[in-house]
Amino acid sequence: MQDRYFYEPRGGHGLAHDPIASLVGPRPIAWISTVSQDGVLNLAPYSFFGIFNYRPPIVAFASDGLKDSLRNALHQGEFVINTVTSELAAAMNASSTSARRNEFELTGLASAPSRLLRTPRVADSPVALECRVIEGKPLRDLRGAEVGSWLLIGEVVGVSLDRRLVETGSFDWQGTRRVLRAGGPSDYHVVGTENLIRMTRPT
Amino acid sequence: MQDRYFYEPRGGHGLAHDPIASLVGPRPIAWISTVSQDGVLNLAPYSFFGIFNYRPPIVAFASDGLKDSLRNALHQGEFVINTVTSELAAAMNASSTSARRNEFELTGLASAPSRLLRTPRVADSPVALECRVIEGKPLRDLRGAEVGSWLLIGEVVGVSLDRRLVETGSFDWQGTRRVLRAGGPSDYHVVGTENLIRMTRPT
Repeated sequence: MQDRYFYEPRGGHGLAHDPIASLVGPRPIAWISTVSQDGVLNLAPYSFFGIFNYRPPIVAFASDGLKDSLRNALHQGEFVINTVTSELAAAMNASSTSARRNEFELTGLASAPSRLLRTPRVADSPVALECRVIEGKPLRDLRGAEVGSWLLIGEVVGVSLDRRLVETGSFDWQGTRRVLRAGGPSDYHVVGTENLIRMTRPT
Repeated sequence: MQDRYFYEPRGGHGLAHDPIASLVGPRPIAWISTVSQDGVLNLAPYSFFGIFNYRPPIVAFASDGLKDSLRNALHQGEFVINTVTSELAAAMNASSTSARRNEFELTGLASAPSRLLRTPRVADSPVALECRVIEGKPLRDLRGAEVGSWLLIGEVVGVSLDRRLVETGSFDWQGTRRVLRAGGPSDYHVVGTENLIRMTRPT
């Protein structure tokens, strides 16, 4: 029998840090590249992010206010989701600066052209999802009030992979060490080949 | 310079398995308990799931069609998200059966009452998020066509934690071994204390 700690988020959590994001995690990071109205490249990480449909693939991310990525994606109608690996972790973190400038230049990352979009991808990221915007809208709470965040929903129209990850004819999800957003203000978890469970789904 | 494999999802992926879900991952699993209109408990795992706002906490999950969890949540206006740990992995997998019955009975899991909702939580899950439904709607693609999945958005109104996870005054995200949906049809990744990166966010 567990002793439980209970709180109502609207009344405060009573802890040193708000745990809510850590409770839903560790989470994949969408490292999103966009192009501004005047052609400036932008790159920023978002872990309020998920996939919601298979065919066609539909993804969504949320932005705390109308930040560059969201504004650019809405304006251009497109964005690219790059995957963060352990080799790219430091650059991803550096790109989370609130400074309004080209994060490719800031971090020294190379970009590479997308196949279907004018928005480039991160050249060294092994997975890039080329997305077109389906819808962007302010998130509302239970009472119908806008909370200040926006939800952006997109369709993945193109998938670009490091060919080594599909050499066997299937995607090798353990072939690249992905970085997930974990707990607290600064913790990330790297997914390796260890700690695997295989379970066949019942019919 | 990477050699790239490119495909357009609407044209097919050309691989043995559709990799799209594995590309966004590993992903947290929302193990969702609901109550049907006639009072039957339901429990099922969803990894098309994410958190999208801090204050108040807003979460969303997608269901492939109007499955029990979604129908129940829409009808009752509430649902509980339970966290899956390694000890609960087998039961979680068993609960993904498409058989329409009480998965608590099926798996032998104990339920425990929620604090704010009439929907119970999984007693042995260390984290339960009590949620009220904000909105449920069919997902649409780029062309405006319904894709068959529904997106359900909810506000977390209550958080119930195993007290041992907050003994230090902060949530210990490594204090429980969480299970993430990883690649292929049957792979899961267990988050342990290893493979941690700490990075301070730039200002």
